[in-house]
Amino acid sequence: MKIEEGDEVLLYVDERRKYLIKVEKGKSFSTDKGTIKLDELIGLRYGSAIKLNQGEGYILKPSLIDLYRGGLRPSQVIYPKDIGYMILYSGIGPGSVILEAGTGSGYLTAALAHFVGETGKVYSYDMREDMQSKAEKNLKRLGLRERVELKLGDIREGVPENNVDAVFLDMPDPWNAIDAAKRSLKYSGSVLAFVPTIRQVELTYIAMDQSGFIDLRADHLLLTEIRVKQNATRPKNVGVLHTGYIVFGRKTEKKSLRESGEVEVQESIKGNGSMR
Amino acid sequence: MKIEEGDEVLLYVDERRKYLIKVEKGKSFSTDKGTIKLDELIGLRYGSAIKLNQGEGYILKPSLIDLYRGGLRPSQVIYPKDIGYMILYSGIGPGSVILEAGTGSGYLTAALAHFVGETGKVYSYDMREDMQSKAEKNLKRLGLRERVELKLGDIREGVPENNVDAVFLDMPDPWNAIDAAKRSLKYSGSVLAFVPTIRQVELTYIAMDQSGFIDLRADHLLLTEIRVKQNATRPKNVGVLHTGYIVFGRKTEKKSLRESGEVEVQESIKGNGSMR
Amino acid sequence: MKIEEGDEVLLYVDERRKYLIKVEKGKSFSTDKGTIKLDELIGLRYGSAIKLNQGEGYILKPSLIDLYRGGLRPSQVIYPKDIGYMILYSGIGPGSVILEAGTGSGYLTAALAHFVGETGKVYSYDMREDMQSKAEKNLKRLGLRERVELKLGDIREGVPENNVDAVFLDMPDPWNAIDAAKRSLKYSGSVLAFVPTIRQVELTYIAMDQSGFIDLRADHLLLTEIRVKQNATRPKNVGVLHTGYIVFGRKTEKKSLRESGEVEVQESIKGNGSMR
Amino acid sequence: MKIEEGDEVLLYVDERRKYLIKVEKGKSFSTDKGTIKLDELIGLRYGSAIKLNQGEGYILKPSLIDLYRGGLRPSQVIYPKDIGYMILYSGIGPGSVILEAGTGSGYLTAALAHFVGETGKVYSYDMREDMQSKAEKNLKRLGLRERVELKLGDIREGVPENNVDAVFLDMPDPWNAIDAAKRSLKYSGSVLAFVPTIRQVELTYIAMDQSGFIDLRADHLLLTEIRVKQNATRPKNVGVLHTGYIVFGRKTEKKSLRESGEVEVQESIKGNGSMR
Repeated sequence: MKIEEGDEVLLYVDERRKYLIKVEKGKSFSTDKGTIKLDELIGLRYGSAIKLNQGEGYILKPSLIDLYRGGLRPSQVIYPKDIGYMILYSGIGPGSVILEAGTGSGYLTAALAHFVGETGKVYSYDMREDMQSKAEKNLKRLGLRERVELKLGDIREGVPENNVDAVFLDMPDPWNAIDAAKRSLKYSGSVLAFVPTIRQVELTYIAMDQSGFIDLRADHLLLTEIRVKQNATRPKNVGVLHTGYIVFGRKTEKKSLRESGEVEVQESIKGNGSMR
Repeated sequence: MKIEEGDEVLLYVDERRKYLIKVEKGKSFSTDKGTIKLDELIGLRYGSAIKLNQGEGYILKPSLIDLYRGGLRPSQVIYPKDIGYMILYSGIGPGSVILEAGTGSGYLTAALAHFVGETGKVYSYDMREDMQSKAEKNLKRLGLRERVELKLGDIREGVPENNVDAVFLDMPDPWNAIDAAKRSLKYSGSVLAFVPTIRQVELTYIAMDQSGFIDLRADHLLLTEIRVKQNATRPKNVGVLHTGYIVFGRKTEKKSLRESGEVEVQESIKGNGSMR
Repeated sequence: MKIEEGDEVLLYVDERRKYLIKVEKGKSFSTDKGTIKLDELIGLRYGSAIKLNQGEGYILKPSLIDLYRGGLRPSQVIYPKDIGYMILYSGIGPGSVILEAGTGSGYLTAALAHFVGETGKVYSYDMREDMQSKAEKNLKRLGLRERVELKLGDIREGVPENNVDAVFLDMPDPWNAIDAAKRSLKYSGSVLAFVPTIRQVELTYIAMDQSGFIDLRADHLLLTEIRVKQNATRPKNVGVLHTGYIVFGRKTEKKSLRESGEVEVQESIKGNGSMR
Repeated sequence: MKIEEGDEVLLYVDERRKYLIKVEKGKSFSTDKGTIKLDELIGLRYGSAIKLNQGEGYILKPSLIDLYRGGLRPSQVIYPKDIGYMILYSGIGPGSVILEAGTGSGYLTAALAHFVGETGKVYSYDMREDMQSKAEKNLKRLGLRERVELKLGDIREGVPENNVDAVFLDMPDPWNAIDAAKRSLKYSGSVLAFVPTIRQVELTYIAMDQSGFIDLRADHLLLTEIRVKQNATRPKNVGVLHTGYIVFGRKTEKKSLRESGEVEVQESIKGNGSMR
């Protein structure tokens, strides 16, 4: 695969020097190890070595992980470890149709679009136009724009999409979107929410339970990087201890408490909006 | 989506009663909560409620996670948390071509086949014919058999596949397969190994480094399940503390120590074969 | 140090065979590796090897850790990792005077009594007479009975002890005992609570804050046992993920919200009693 | 308890402003919240509130934890969570006699001296005179100097102390001190080492095993601080993931491999000295 003008590439110099660069004619890119004329990258294959003033760099095709490193940080603290787990758990794959709220900077959106492939679709809602503009730009950079329908709006009020394979909720009060998620989901489809605090876990989990979702789970992942050195290997000393919790459920014919005529005891606590 | 004869379905009764069932005419399935005639499932949509002697069950379309639960346990201790992370990190997606060693019971193979879609391919090597027969059966159950080429053989001796997008090593001595992996990989592609002990992490990481792979990482994931209960939420008391480590690297034009004419200091320790 | 009649000793055969035994004349103790006549232990020094039918055993002087293993399990899930941390954080040492609630089976009580020494004192409250009888028996076994004053009563209603160095709360609703703890503490002394759920952490922490305690902390400890084997070392696969949280604060002249004339917003939620 | 001239006190302003101060006549101490004349502290009781230009501060009697915060950082990464656990596991208490190597800045030494009380003793070895001078100064500050005998020397060559209750090894190659530790320990006494890497764990554990120690353990502690906020409680996002491992064993009459006439397979690897 050759590098073309307009491509996003990853320049890897060493562990601390990784740069996401857009290949534009006539431009150059400088680091403390030397300067690269971007024209010279065009036509090279990915994986090529580039001579710098000091040492060598390598041009990689950026993966989702690199985009994360390179600035496409989500507005909230959802990390690759969480996204990989959510995608596996959700059951989605090539061809899946997904409903997402909110879009944010588009990082989770991009990951979902990547895995549904050209035959899939992601409907991504956000209430902020500025966020969606940013996400749109990011998705274009990644060549994933065609697979995503960006929609301005509030999922909590219900959305027209239905029969979707999975719903991803990356919003402060997912418990207020559970009923809407259920209406949009196909049977046997799954809903996943990502939230930073225990209170949000409780409210989301209980809302799923009361809405008739089954197979509920709430999970936390801790990633420890290992520093490898011959005969001196040990975990990294300092790092991320917490990003958030993943709450999961699946839709069946099971009725909600309301449909069953039972009282929803949580009504009062569900009123209080965003917590983040 | 309707249930058809021959489908694998998940019968969910409650958190402790989840059963993976193959729908065969004239058969029935019994639990302590009641018996289901499988004929009656045919034609139902997924997500349907089924009346049992005691309470209700629900018929779900099995996802990769359910297959894990339902008996398709890998020969080694690679868990969904690890697989999700490896797949995200590998950069693969619909259409990718993957080299895997070893096949084992086919669980990781199935996950890879799921995410590469109909347009992708997984070449999966194992030295044991009995394992591959088992894996073949599992892949057929999942409708993923067409996407996988099962091959008897030893990746450490080199394999004919080349230009693959990623190499997954789920074997006791991945350090002995790193050179072969490099030859088969396309530039900018990635290699990932899963190993249970720190010594294996060291040997694999160092072999990657000496073979010229860059952007090396070794990671550990800890999954904590949260027990949610209104005002009494807490982590689960007992669970899995360790499955294994994920070692990652990417291929570029960077030369190996041998190609650079440098001595490989690890030669002696690389000789000792399987450790598991 | 010689073993005497009436001593509690630890018979260590191997990792899975550790027995806490009271040395009584004329009795014997049997394991699947052989039988020991307890008379023969009298007069031996601690650390002695004992011949069994199969192999050898060793007689150790039990430490607090062994007592934990040997049956003196607390009524709640407070573990050695938590106790060591609490004792270090509390600032107590030889000669300290401590107020504890509740006594339970006396395990934390015993640890506190051990570290305050002969010149210190532990006042330990519990509302259940049967628990205190059990704790009394345990403390006698350990030779720590003299250092502990066991008292039947409810700390939440206030207790006569004052000027104590630290207060340890091992009870379901420590937030209801914070004001009493403050009255009993000397200035610069510390209060520590151990609770299993996040909601209890919140209520306890907020009660400490409103009562004027400073330097507040809430901590969680995860202990991972490492399985050591030459070149195959790894963390243990399955183990304890969660016991509880430690909440800490220190008393100064800082006024409580009530003393400052401010409204205590937590009043309503503080009413609901035990949660465990 | 009144504050006297020469005391070390802790000035607590808020979570980020904690200062360890020596009370000297005629001096003052300044923060961005205001200045304190130290003369005014003399005669106050601990826990007193001090008016600052902005808000209030509180004068606390420093505990071991505060000393850790206040500059008495160990040369190596041994943290309070590790020290509390080691002390509980070691079985020591008031009156114990302890052998320690190495002294370092004296932080672990101070904790040990605190818990053995006036009737106990800590023999602490270090090969560096400058470290011991620093430790001596720290111990004097804490009023613990009398309980500690600081000795220049190399424990690996054997030391004259014997019949000690516990040996604490905070040195790069504890495996080279295991035989010396065994000679100095009383029967049923325990040895504890703190090491940062897995290789050190292996070498230390194996040396203990070969030397005849029993009841071996290797443990790792992860401390997660909880950020408490009404209805928004969550773990702290970033923190310490790793300090080191604690390796533990107990002395009995069990013979070492050498005493049993067996070959010590580890001899070769035990030669390579410090790894840190």
